[in-house]
Amino acid sequence: MHRDNLLPLLLKTEITMSNYTPLSEVGEFGLIKLIKEKVDLQHESSVLGIGDDAAIIEPHEKQIVVSTDMLLEGVHFDLTFCPLKHLGYKAIAVNVSDIAAMNATPTQVTVSIALGARYTVEAVEELYEGIRLACENYKVDLIGGDTTSSRAGLVISVTAIGEVPKGEAVRRSGAQVNDLICVTGDLGAAYLGLQVLEREKQAFMANPEMQPELEEKQYIIGRQLRPEARMDVIHDLKERDIKPTAMIDVSDGLASELFHICKQSGVGATIYKDNLPADEQMLETALEFNLDPITCIMNGGEDYELLFTVPLADYDKVKNHPDISIIGKITEASEGINLANKHGQAFPLQAQGWAHF
Amino acid sequence: MHRDNLLPLLLKTEITMSNYTPLSEVGEFGLIKLIKEKVDLQHESSVLGIGDDAAIIEPHEKQIVVSTDMLLEGVHFDLTFCPLKHLGYKAIAVNVSDIAAMNATPTQVTVSIALGARYTVEAVEELYEGIRLACENYKVDLIGGDTTSSRAGLVISVTAIGEVPKGEAVRRSGAQVNDLICVTGDLGAAYLGLQVLEREKQAFMANPEMQPELEEKQYIIGRQLRPEARMDVIHDLKERDIKPTAMIDVSDGLASELFHICKQSGVGATIYKDNLPADEQMLETALEFNLDPITCIMNGGEDYELLFTVPLADYDKVKNHPDISIIGKITEASEGINLANKHGQAFPLQAQGWAHF
Repeated sequence: MHRDNLLPLLLKTEITMSNYTPLSEVGEFGLIKLIKEKVDLQHESSVLGIGDDAAIIEPHEKQIVVSTDMLLEGVHFDLTFCPLKHLGYKAIAVNVSDIAAMNATPTQVTVSIALGARYTVEAVEELYEGIRLACENYKVDLIGGDTTSSRAGLVISVTAIGEVPKGEAVRRSGAQVNDLICVTGDLGAAYLGLQVLEREKQAFMANPEMQPELEEKQYIIGRQLRPEARMDVIHDLKERDIKPTAMIDVSDGLASELFHICKQSGVGATIYKDNLPADEQMLETALEFNLDPITCIMNGGEDYELLFTVPLADYDKVKNHPDISIIGKITEASEGINLANKHGQAFPLQAQGWAHF
Repeated sequence: MHRDNLLPLLLKTEITMSNYTPLSEVGEFGLIKLIKEKVDLQHESSVLGIGDDAAIIEPHEKQIVVSTDMLLEGVHFDLTFCPLKHLGYKAIAVNVSDIAAMNATPTQVTVSIALGARYTVEAVEELYEGIRLACENYKVDLIGGDTTSSRAGLVISVTAIGEVPKGEAVRRSGAQVNDLICVTGDLGAAYLGLQVLEREKQAFMANPEMQPELEEKQYIIGRQLRPEARMDVIHDLKERDIKPTAMIDVSDGLASELFHICKQSGVGATIYKDNLPADEQMLETALEFNLDPITCIMNGGEDYELLFTVPLADYDKVKNHPDISIIGKITEASEGINLANKHGQAFPLQAQGWAHF
C-alpha cells in the first residue's frame, strides 16, 4: 500500500495550542522568515521564491497548469481531531491531486494562511512541517504566499502550479463512447474515517477520561486525515504509454465527478457495482454505522483518487495494474448515467456531492 | 488624474445583503456557472479557464511571475462601508500591484471566495462585477478559483500570474549606492480615507438618521476603497527605456517598503521630507484628525503606489514625469535609513507597517 500507517493523536492539537510562543513575539516578518528558512527550491523552473513581490517561474517551453483550493476551519477541517501537521500535508496533497488530474507534474505551490490570536509559533511550525513534508514527497517548491490574522478560525489557501508538455494535458471533456472507466485505489474510506472521528469526538466530549479507540480504524482515519495525491499512478500511466481521454480527481464523490466527465464530454456512462473498489475496514465500518457501502463509495468524497477514461484498446495495459480498477464504460449520452448490478439491471445515478451552501 | 471620482454609498452593502436570492437556491455548481458565464478569456496564453481540475497557461518563452494575497472580513475590510463591487475590484488591484512591482505584465488571476450563510446570489454578483471590471481594466483573465462556505465572514484569496521577458523582472534586491529613489502618485491618502470612513461609521451607529458627509473626502475615500495598481507607470517606464534597479509596491507604508529594499539590496537610504508627494485633501484631513501628515505618508499603507530606484544617469528620464516624485537617494548601508529636512538634518527612520498579530 502506498499510504503510511498513522494513528492520529486525538485532541493533540488542542494541547499544542496552549502555552508556547505567541505569534505577537515574532510578528509577521518573523513568521515569514521562519517559513522561508525551511524552504529549499528544487526545481530548475523555480527562479525566485519567497521574499519579493512575486515569485518567478521559468517554464522552458512547457504549458503551465494552475489550481487553487481554500480550506476553512469548521467547514473543511476540525482541529479537535485533525493534527496541524496532517492538515498542512492535506492542504498540499489535495491541490497536487488537481494537478495530477490534468496529467501534469506539480512544480510549485503558494500557501496563504490566516491565523486566529490563539495560535502559537509552535502551532504554525507544526502546520508548515506538514506542508514541507508534502512538498518533499511531491517534489514541489513552496515559492510564496501570504500570512495574516483571522478573527475566526484558521484559513488555508493553496495555489498549485504544474507543468505539462503541450498536447499532454488531460481535460474532463475528452471521454469517448466505448472508453473504459477506471478509478485508482479504493473509495468511501475517507468519508467513513470522518464518521469515526466525529463519533470519538462526541464520546470524548461526553467523557474526557475516555481513550479514543482508533487502533482498528487506522486505515480509514488515515484516508481522511492524510490523503495522498496519486502522482504514482500518473507516472505509471506514462510508463505504460497510456494517455487517458478524460480525467478528474475524486474530491466530491465518484458520482459527482462522473457527472462532470459525462456532461463535459457529452456522453453517458454505466458503472458496474461489483467492480467498485472497496477496502475491508471501510465495509465493516459502513455496517457499524448502518450506512450503505455503495452510497459511501459513490458519494462519500475526499478520496482524492483519480477517475479517468481510456480507449477500449488500452484494456490490456490497465487490467493488471494493482491499484487501478476498471469500473465501467462510456455510453451514448442518450443512455444516461447508470449503476448496473451483476444481473444486468441498471439504475440511474444521482450526483450528490457536497452541498456547501 | 488616473483615478475615478467615486462616492461610495455608505452602508449600501448592508442593504444589498437582505432579501434577494439565497445561495442555497443555486448551489455551488450554479454559483460557478454564474461566475463562468461572465468570464471571457482575452490572453492568447490562457489556453483553458474555469471548469476543469486546473487552468492551462501557455507562456511562450516568457518567465511567469506569481503572487497571492488573502483578504478577510473584519481584518482587511469592513462591509459596513466597503461596497462589494469595490471590494472585488480592490482584491484584483492589490494583486496586480504585486505583479507590476516585478516589472511584469499581469495575465491571469484565480479567485477563491468563502461566503457566510447570509450572502445572496445578488451580493456575489456585485462582488464579481467588481472583479470583472478590474480584470477588464488590467487586461487579465479570470481562469479559476474555489467557492466554499464560511462560518464567519467573507474571505477572498487571489493569486495573480504575470509574464515578463527573461532578464526584465525587477526584484527588491538590486538597488545600488547613488541610485535615485522614486515613488509614484501621492501617499497617505488611503490611510486617512479609512479614518474618515471609520468616523462616519461611528456617527451613523450613534445616529442612524445621520447622512454621512463624504462629498469633500471623495479622493481619499476612493484611495481606500478602490485603489489602482500602477500598470500605467510600468508601461511609461518601458516607453522611456527605464528599467528600475529595485522595485516594490507600497502596501504596508513607505517606510516599511524602503526597509525591504535596503535590507535586500544591502544599502542605506536618505529620503527628503520636502519631496514626499502629498495630496491637499490628505493634508487637510490629517490636520482634522490631529495626525502628523509625514507619519501618514511614511506609515499609512494601502497606497499601492510603486517605490523604485533608478541609476542617477536616468535622472533626466524621470524628472518630468507628472506622476513620479524623486524622493531620495540610495546610500552606503553604514549610513542607515534616514529622513532629511531642508536644513540637511537627518533623522533615522522607523519602519512600522502593519502589525497583523
